[in-house]
Amino acid sequence: MAHIKSVINFPSAQRKERKAETLARQYTAVRQQTESLAAPLSAEDQMVQSCAEASPAKWHQAHTTWFFETFILTPQLANYRIFDQRFRDLFNSYYNAVGPQPEKALRNTFSRPSLEDVHKYRQHVDQCMQELLSTSALSDEVLGLVELGLNHEQQHQELLVTDIKHAFWSNPLRPAYQSGSAPSPGSAAQQKPKTIPEGLVAIGADGSGFHFDNEAPRHKVFVPAFRFATRPATCGEYLAFMDDRGYERPELWLSDGWQAVQTHRWSAPLYWEKSGGEWYQFTCSGTRKIDEAEPVCHVSLYEADAFSRWAGARLPTEFEWEVVAADLPVEGNLLEKGNFHPAAAPMAKSEEPVQIFGDVWEWTASAYLPYPGFKPAAGAIGEYNGKFMSGQMVLRGGSCVTSGSHIRATYRNFFQPATRWQFSGVRLADDCI
Amino acid sequence: MAHIKSVINFPSAQRKERKAETLARQYTAVRQQTESLAAPLSAEDQMVQSCAEASPAKWHQAHTTWFFETFILTPQLANYRIFDQRFRDLFNSYYNAVGPQPEKALRNTFSRPSLEDVHKYRQHVDQCMQELLSTSALSDEVLGLVELGLNHEQQHQELLVTDIKHAFWSNPLRPAYQSGSAPSPGSAAQQKPKTIPEGLVAIGADGSGFHFDNEAPRHKVFVPAFRFATRPATCGEYLAFMDDRGYERPELWLSDGWQAVQTHRWSAPLYWEKSGGEWYQFTCSGTRKIDEAEPVCHVSLYEADAFSRWAGARLPTEFEWEVVAADLPVEGNLLEKGNFHPAAAPMAKSEEPVQIFGDVWEWTASAYLPYPGFKPAAGAIGEYNGKFMSGQMVLRGGSCVTSGSHIRATYRNFFQPATRWQFSGVRLADDCI
Amino acid sequence: MAHIKSVINFPSAQRKERKAETLARQYTAVRQQTESLAAPLSAEDQMVQSCAEASPAKWHQAHTTWFFETFILTPQLANYRIFDQRFRDLFNSYYNAVGPQPEKALRNTFSRPSLEDVHKYRQHVDQCMQELLSTSALSDEVLGLVELGLNHEQQHQELLVTDIKHAFWSNPLRPAYQSGSAPSPGSAAQQKPKTIPEGLVAIGADGSGFHFDNEAPRHKVFVPAFRFATRPATCGEYLAFMDDRGYERPELWLSDGWQAVQTHRWSAPLYWEKSGGEWYQFTCSGTRKIDEAEPVCHVSLYEADAFSRWAGARLPTEFEWEVVAADLPVEGNLLEKGNFHPAAAPMAKSEEPVQIFGDVWEWTASAYLPYPGFKPAAGAIGEYNGKFMSGQMVLRGGSCVTSGSHIRATYRNFFQPATRWQFSGVRLADDCI
Amino acid sequence: MAHIKSVINFPSAQRKERKAETLARQYTAVRQQTESLAAPLSAEDQMVQSCAEASPAKWHQAHTTWFFETFILTPQLANYRIFDQRFRDLFNSYYNAVGPQPEKALRNTFSRPSLEDVHKYRQHVDQCMQELLSTSALSDEVLGLVELGLNHEQQHQELLVTDIKHAFWSNPLRPAYQSGSAPSPGSAAQQKPKTIPEGLVAIGADGSGFHFDNEAPRHKVFVPAFRFATRPATCGEYLAFMDDRGYERPELWLSDGWQAVQTHRWSAPLYWEKSGGEWYQFTCSGTRKIDEAEPVCHVSLYEADAFSRWAGARLPTEFEWEVVAADLPVEGNLLEKGNFHPAAAPMAKSEEPVQIFGDVWEWTASAYLPYPGFKPAAGAIGEYNGKFMSGQMVLRGGSCVTSGSHIRATYRNFFQPATRWQFSGVRLADDCI
Repeated sequence: MAHIKSVINFPSAQRKERKAETLARQYTAVRQQTESLAAPLSAEDQMVQSCAEASPAKWHQAHTTWFFETFILTPQLANYRIFDQRFRDLFNSYYNAVGPQPEKALRNTFSRPSLEDVHKYRQHVDQCMQELLSTSALSDEVLGLVELGLNHEQQHQELLVTDIKHAFWSNPLRPAYQSGSAPSPGSAAQQKPKTIPEGLVAIGADGSGFHFDNEAPRHKVFVPAFRFATRPATCGEYLAFMDDRGYERPELWLSDGWQAVQTHRWSAPLYWEKSGGEWYQFTCSGTRKIDEAEPVCHVSLYEADAFSRWAGARLPTEFEWEVVAADLPVEGNLLEKGNFHPAAAPMAKSEEPVQIFGDVWEWTASAYLPYPGFKPAAGAIGEYNGKFMSGQMVLRGGSCVTSGSHIRATYRNFFQPATRWQFSGVRLADDCI
Repeated sequence: MAHIKSVINFPSAQRKERKAETLARQYTAVRQQTESLAAPLSAEDQMVQSCAEASPAKWHQAHTTWFFETFILTPQLANYRIFDQRFRDLFNSYYNAVGPQPEKALRNTFSRPSLEDVHKYRQHVDQCMQELLSTSALSDEVLGLVELGLNHEQQHQELLVTDIKHAFWSNPLRPAYQSGSAPSPGSAAQQKPKTIPEGLVAIGADGSGFHFDNEAPRHKVFVPAFRFATRPATCGEYLAFMDDRGYERPELWLSDGWQAVQTHRWSAPLYWEKSGGEWYQFTCSGTRKIDEAEPVCHVSLYEADAFSRWAGARLPTEFEWEVVAADLPVEGNLLEKGNFHPAAAPMAKSEEPVQIFGDVWEWTASAYLPYPGFKPAAGAIGEYNGKFMSGQMVLRGGSCVTSGSHIRATYRNFFQPATRWQFSGVRLADDCI
Repeated sequence: MAHIKSVINFPSAQRKERKAETLARQYTAVRQQTESLAAPLSAEDQMVQSCAEASPAKWHQAHTTWFFETFILTPQLANYRIFDQRFRDLFNSYYNAVGPQPEKALRNTFSRPSLEDVHKYRQHVDQCMQELLSTSALSDEVLGLVELGLNHEQQHQELLVTDIKHAFWSNPLRPAYQSGSAPSPGSAAQQKPKTIPEGLVAIGADGSGFHFDNEAPRHKVFVPAFRFATRPATCGEYLAFMDDRGYERPELWLSDGWQAVQTHRWSAPLYWEKSGGEWYQFTCSGTRKIDEAEPVCHVSLYEADAFSRWAGARLPTEFEWEVVAADLPVEGNLLEKGNFHPAAAPMAKSEEPVQIFGDVWEWTASAYLPYPGFKPAAGAIGEYNGKFMSGQMVLRGGSCVTSGSHIRATYRNFFQPATRWQFSGVRLADDCI
Repeated sequence: MAHIKSVINFPSAQRKERKAETLARQYTAVRQQTESLAAPLSAEDQMVQSCAEASPAKWHQAHTTWFFETFILTPQLANYRIFDQRFRDLFNSYYNAVGPQPEKALRNTFSRPSLEDVHKYRQHVDQCMQELLSTSALSDEVLGLVELGLNHEQQHQELLVTDIKHAFWSNPLRPAYQSGSAPSPGSAAQQKPKTIPEGLVAIGADGSGFHFDNEAPRHKVFVPAFRFATRPATCGEYLAFMDDRGYERPELWLSDGWQAVQTHRWSAPLYWEKSGGEWYQFTCSGTRKIDEAEPVCHVSLYEADAFSRWAGARLPTEFEWEVVAADLPVEGNLLEKGNFHPAAAPMAKSEEPVQIFGDVWEWTASAYLPYPGFKPAAGAIGEYNGKFMSGQMVLRGGSCVTSGSHIRATYRNFFQPATRWQFSGVRLADDCI
């Protein structure tokens, strides 16, 4: 199975046992992390589903648990007692091979089971998972599935925060997800684009750690020479685009993007509002004045693309992005920092680009398509990624609500080009001529 | 103000005081009733809004409170402390004269204020209302507004149950709002249509008690002779219509109705499902087998109309209905019975039609239009009814979730003809020729 | 059959023969009139269908012919040769009992048959109809159907002009349907509302001439005293409403109407455009400056209703309208005048209201519903009117594109309240208090 | 300007003159071809626009003329008399830099100008173009624009036939565009997939002839080893997919594709209909029984993709396709053959794949995105291709309605993945492992 390649090469029983122990520890940490993120939310907050992309926080907590129950405990643990037979359909997201699923928009009608019952569900599954992980003879496949389940849960952690931000913004009272004052306005690092020469490069996961199936197989891509911005574009730069009538000039936009501007009457990123001549944005800590040094966030691919055209540049391809990121350490303004908001770029200590990981997902110019030789996993798990390879664009690098143990240089996120509810920003690139 | 006509004629201060005392008692009872209806619901249940017609139960509790605060306490009670300034907009339903309102579909994002805070809001307003009602010198206008506020709250009580039924049906787990087993199947009274001779009759409220503005002025209508069914049509009769391919024969339907059948793929009333060759329906007590003797419920005007055409009859006008109902006592299977479901018609003790009040709202053939000389109240309260006099049909008689102290012969309910989430049924009438 | 009541009472064979002769003459005249109206149009013009309400002019010519072929020639004329078997479905509008029909929006794909072939179709049917009408022994039913067919064709004449006006307006070149310069601006008659006392009146067709089934049966209605405007509201009066921010004040509008204003961004009647600070309107003779004395036209029921509320009045009911119109001669600015545009009201010669017939259809406050005892005709013809008695409002009096031989005091036209492509205007009424 | 690279290298005045002569001859031929294709169509036929993708045939004739007038004659020919000033906006398709454009759906309201006037427009422009082309000193830029204009017109020739097929299918009479009986059923060549080894290849136009800007720059792509089907999949093979419940199995489909199947209720390619147990398809020569040996046609990307998954294969990338096509002659079942329908694959004479050019456009697995270093032309012409590089998939090879002088190995066509009105089919590829 492609996405569990990482465990295929375990050479010995001993190593496998250490792996199981590590996973047991990670399991506790990841599951705990989810609950910490949900802790500031009341049971009522956890019912809200405020846009088509989002799900209620309670649902995220239940569905991630369902994943372990459905794909690991039920098939693997002899005598496993299913917590509630009805959850098999109820908390299925989109796995047709598992069975029918409720329409996504109905998730906000799931007042039952209660949050309390979902907590019991989590505890039941956690107990059984720990029992399973303490078993001596776990197969590579099972270990791989556990790792997948943890990464799956980390994706939903990110969604939980992303979704609750939208939920709170939709409530006219605009409650804050967390307290905390805005950082004092800083200044962003100067752009000093890096030039990368052409080359035949290896793209995709090399099998040395966990990866999703869509990151494989590692394969050769010829990448022409290009220039790559030091850091993502800032709110200040985006305001200059807006002031230059960026949202009113069709020549800057893809045709679909121009259509989206008209249909949705976009005139600024999502969560931005003008009040008394000043621009404000809604954040996880409430409404704040725009800080010009911060990376612009919550823009669609269309806006990222139009901005880049206005700037005389373009978006990088996902291959260009990976070439740059491949050798950089995974560190930055990530979930663990607890900011839940992008921060002004630090001064670069070297010639290397900064803010590659964390802060904002970076839209690329690449459509989300299978790598050469891509094979989805067999069975229901094969529906995880493959069937979405249509109509979406790749984003790279994670955001301020992505866990640091979840992101890597080969990670491919993907959304439809009109999507704005994500912490998505824009980094410029250009041809070398 | 038309809807407070009932109090205009109080002849003396003494009588007014008695009125205030009565209202104070009614206030307590009505407010308590709302809370009893919400009692089986968790805070999470009270967040659900599962269709365009519905609102969350918590919202109903807050909005009815807002009505007293906005229209009575704030203008009338010196030194009234507004509970939360932000609620003025937040819990406004559709009163443009009060201010802007959140889009209706957003009500299920109101996780804040919490249910607990809404309870505090209710207590605060209740305390102040009792204080106001103990004041000696209340004007007729204020007394009228209190009466209106209580009737308003009773409307929302009915909606609360109607909405939660839909909410629980939308949840794939199909929880029950109340426990209670189905009554043993009975048999419905035989139809022995009553003939009413033509006449120039008085229609509308006569001012002897509370009424909404849309029930006035009382005016003369010439009503030709007609026949009027003993009781509403039953599930058994409706099944005969279905078995006779009622949903497949365009000649039985209004053109818009036929369109609705195609668009929504209707083939039975809302909440009906076939399983193993048998028809079931979802009720406030969970899913039950269809009882053929019970009145058919949750049908649109289009279905009621097609059924009546199939039966060789027609729907009564609202004037015919009122002529029959005018002299009958307000009693029946109403909210206070706690059935929350229509029941088989009792044997008629006289020649009079039965089940006039309660059980199911009865669709009429009358469009919801102003009575001659209708004048909506001045100010924001004028938006209560008048602005909806377009595109809707009148229903009469209340249902099993209407309070007995809220319904009367002149009461006009109104919904768009495709509406099915109401407890709406069909009583036949016919011309005398 | 209700709509052919007019011929039921023919006492003798001789009278029937005279009737047939009259009908034969009328047949020639009406059919010729259609072709005259289509004469200024090219085959290409006759393909255009520019909104959901409209049909191509060629289709109108074919469908009216189909009506005679399907309902009269085929069943009545022995050895009748059907012109083209495929037309039975192709030119069926909405008669489910005749068979399936193409979706309405597809009518603009009917490039075949050619206009030339449709002309041949008309000639073929005309010849056979004249043959039939020269037969001695025609039944009352057949004579009634011929009369119905001619009235049906007159309705489509009106639609043909209404539709081509919209078609030409949709074409950015804005061609004119006819030449002709604007009349010199006049001044409209002063409003001197007439007061009509209350009374029990007879409403509906009395059987002395042709009428549609929806005008029967004649029945008693009690109409309270009311006041009735001398003439329809003018463009000048409507401009005052607009200048007083009529389109921006929700309190003037029905709730559905306010929604329509937002959705469609209405700020003036259909066909009005502001240019250089002046208002212009598109007419059948091209674009002209607004003449303030002319009746305002192409407004929806919602706009008519909001205007009337702004004016401190209301729309008349259809019964009030009929009471006034019953004794007035059918004369005015009708199709035969060839203006195809409403004209300023003449000075009233008496106390009677003017412009009752012609100029603009007058929206009433009455929903389009069956009269007491209404029975649609048996068979397919029964679909003519009855199935549309839902969701529409009644208009009275005909317009400048209605034939004078087609309109009468009992005539009920009906459209959905948001409709604006008709020549629809507003006459005010009010209560007498 | 990228798309006129072909003419940049003309070394001498003499060569340029020869080029102008050649273009003058081509101009005559291409313009004549358009008129031949429109010849079977009446003026009425040329009004029809039966789906969102299509335009009326008259519009195609006018818009291609507008292209020459707007981009060449007006700027280049001194004293050029514009045929009709109003056409500049009227026949603009989507060039925002030229000015506003009518909404696309309105094109079927353009009954004026008449077809006759459009013919005069063509003659006027043709005359002036020939005058221009006989000028001695034409710049490379102008020559390039003429070549672009001719290629533009060839694209619209293809669209004209594609659109009229849909128009005639939408008309319930189903007229045929051309006469001609079906070829006798043949048998398609056996599949003997060709294996191509991995390599770093040059992709895109090399500048030796005309190409659109989206085919440039030529650039290096690394293509892994792959297998490539001999010929497109046949109707017989597609029927096997259908018989194997291909349209009912979600596991075969992209998520968006499965959604499209549900929404549109697809169960066969466009234009297919089952009658009496047999499958038929509508063609330019009318309705015919399915010939199992013919390439399947009028399938969406989603259907092509699901079919390929069912077949245990996948779609080729556009790079794989180009690698195979690069050395093959441009010949096949193209527009000039006059079949206007794909034909059974001939026996392969060599190991080379057949039907690369013509028959059906072949969906690829590649999203339509800019090549590295892509720069759209300056000015309005830059809107030709670049702004559509979003949400579309690349198709290669031309179809039976593509002109042979218009297609080449580097040609990139593009449509949204749900598109079916094109002559689009599917060729399989696979990885080599």
